[in-house]
Amino acid sequence: MLPKSPLAPESFPELPAIAGVELATVGAGIRYQGRDDVLLMHFPQGAEVAGVFTRSLTAGAPVLWCREALKGGRARTFLVNSGNANAFTGNRGMQSAKRTVAAAAQALGCAETEVFIASTGVIGEVLPDDRITAKLDELIRGLGPQGWEAAARAIMTTDTFPKVATRTAKIGDVNVTLNGIAKGSGMIAPDMATMLAFVATDAALPAEVLQRLLAGANDRSFNSITVDGDTSTSDTLLLAATGEARNQPVERAGDRVLRDFTRALESLLIDLAHQVVRDGEGAQKFVTIAVRGAASARAARRIGLSIANSPLVKTAVAGEDANWGRIVMAVGKAGEKADRDRLSVAIGGTVIAEQGQPRDGYDEAPVAAHMKGREILIEVDIGIGRGKATVWTCDLTHGYIDINADYRS
Amino acid sequence: MLPKSPLAPESFPELPAIAGVELATVGAGIRYQGRDDVLLMHFPQGAEVAGVFTRSLTAGAPVLWCREALKGGRARTFLVNSGNANAFTGNRGMQSAKRTVAAAAQALGCAETEVFIASTGVIGEVLPDDRITAKLDELIRGLGPQGWEAAARAIMTTDTFPKVATRTAKIGDVNVTLNGIAKGSGMIAPDMATMLAFVATDAALPAEVLQRLLAGANDRSFNSITVDGDTSTSDTLLLAATGEARNQPVERAGDRVLRDFTRALESLLIDLAHQVVRDGEGAQKFVTIAVRGAASARAARRIGLSIANSPLVKTAVAGEDANWGRIVMAVGKAGEKADRDRLSVAIGGTVIAEQGQPRDGYDEAPVAAHMKGREILIEVDIGIGRGKATVWTCDLTHGYIDINADYRS
Repeated sequence: MLPKSPLAPESFPELPAIAGVELATVGAGIRYQGRDDVLLMHFPQGAEVAGVFTRSLTAGAPVLWCREALKGGRARTFLVNSGNANAFTGNRGMQSAKRTVAAAAQALGCAETEVFIASTGVIGEVLPDDRITAKLDELIRGLGPQGWEAAARAIMTTDTFPKVATRTAKIGDVNVTLNGIAKGSGMIAPDMATMLAFVATDAALPAEVLQRLLAGANDRSFNSITVDGDTSTSDTLLLAATGEARNQPVERAGDRVLRDFTRALESLLIDLAHQVVRDGEGAQKFVTIAVRGAASARAARRIGLSIANSPLVKTAVAGEDANWGRIVMAVGKAGEKADRDRLSVAIGGTVIAEQGQPRDGYDEAPVAAHMKGREILIEVDIGIGRGKATVWTCDLTHGYIDINADYRS
Repeated sequence: MLPKSPLAPESFPELPAIAGVELATVGAGIRYQGRDDVLLMHFPQGAEVAGVFTRSLTAGAPVLWCREALKGGRARTFLVNSGNANAFTGNRGMQSAKRTVAAAAQALGCAETEVFIASTGVIGEVLPDDRITAKLDELIRGLGPQGWEAAARAIMTTDTFPKVATRTAKIGDVNVTLNGIAKGSGMIAPDMATMLAFVATDAALPAEVLQRLLAGANDRSFNSITVDGDTSTSDTLLLAATGEARNQPVERAGDRVLRDFTRALESLLIDLAHQVVRDGEGAQKFVTIAVRGAASARAARRIGLSIANSPLVKTAVAGEDANWGRIVMAVGKAGEKADRDRLSVAIGGTVIAEQGQPRDGYDEAPVAAHMKGREILIEVDIGIGRGKATVWTCDLTHGYIDINADYRS
């Protein structure tokens, strides 16, 4: 058990119940003993559902199943286990996933395509689905409206703290609530850095609208963070909307009535994404990289991720070294339009370099003080357009090597 | 001064003189004291020249100059300094570069476009070109046909050993010789991981032919290695051909008479590229990643580099952990066509996983023994095509963090 990250939030919010959502967790002994490792997030009346998944071309069996099931647009349940990712397990893994789905659908009295599954943990071993299905009755008996933190704990692998967030929003004059949980902190041998997140709301929104909102908010949250640039075979983000809030019907994601909900969803996902970074393996500093003046928002994000993924930038942050040269290097390698002589770099609000060269009379003292803190701000102005984006990462420390090199001696 | 890499070659070849090439080095005190830091590689009768450079969009002033000068296709001299990269120095840096070129052209009696420059070292500080130009007369007086190892030492920054290689080849019935030197080992604050390499031959080949040969060989050598995936603003590879061997005229890079020369050039560049990897910051293991069965050679190289750049793969190698799951992960994120159920992975010649799942009865003992060695072989068969490529990298260790985090306390 790793010590809790020094970047963990000081306290966690109490998550309210959401109408139409029930939770249960159980210990199935898939890999861990003495803790719950299976979560059932249940929607007794069903829910509209949206999802985004890893872009990996070697995605695990649960992701392959969910992509298919998502075509139906309806969910009755999310069934999630930790301890085994059921990834790179070939057809035997897919059979295991399908047995899990079939058993859950039967036990819950719903269509198989309404059962969404996710698995995280060791890879290359077929999921012992019998251990999950043996616990289905116990899970169903235990369902209740509370228990979001327990849900977040049940899906943890190498996480050092559970990740929860809640938001409220208005759709017209109706209040709706969103709750979310997530796990992920990088990878630890032989586990994968799977990022899983599950969000539920009582809003009444059709699946197509949910999908558009989720894809957009995901770009500005989970797709804007990086710990080590590696991509899990199992990353999964699901959003269920029970409709119990009975807000006015909405047909289009761009409808003005959804502005507050869209903001709340994005804010919730950014909150969860930040928590994932704050639990990054070996992380000692939380780094915000704000890029502006790029050719487009997409270009700005790519430049930001190039900086965020650079081992040289990340080790410089670990060393509390305001090494703007490495930031420039990372801008240059991003492959997006840039002009050396228009580039500006600021750290902690102090401009270090502008128009392609170090600023005359730059005072290093406030920057050095900033670099000693836990929260680091790097701002880059590309100087050629209006595109902007913010990405988040952590530093690269000896802790990362300790965790991942897994010295056997 | 860092200790010599444990992966350094045990001995270095003695490099022969090459007709039409003269060398001199001098200590100009640009940053280092008590060692030579300027190299003049001179071609008294001139040479045909080819070059490839960093793809960084924030390239340094010397690279910008060389790209222009290369249009002339002729070189009289390569003037190289260590200690200051003259990168991210804006227009003042370009003026410094141009002053250096003008002084060298005057002293040597050639056109400015025949002077190629390269700089490596600290960035963000304008090169003190007066220290170089003050030494031009001494350099010219010191020119002679020997001194390749001294040349390699003069361009070192954080390298722990000089990098030299030599090859011979036949063009028709004429023997030609190629000598090359390189520097680069990752980056050390505040230096950049600039990779510089200079190759000279007495072959008689026109610049356009040289350029094609160099670009192709570069793809299979320097563009197939990675230490940390970061890209310098100054990477430069120049090839000069003096023509003194007086081989038969050749008009096309594809001419069969160049087969042996092409092979020798590629072999020389691979040798130098391997030496750069073997001097990778903190490197304890040299890793060969052979990919086959990809959709194309280009796809195979991208998959190989995705594996080679994965911090999780590199830390697993450091930990002597045969973690094939991370290799699969890296294949999946490469963005090239792959089919989970056709993928095979072998380490040290032992197949660990095939057709998308762990091999039945896989014996871990020989693989564990292989992982304890200095030379690691990872083979991946994508199983969908005929594309193949080999890339090389090193492991990611505490030494890398030590060197790059530069803890100031």
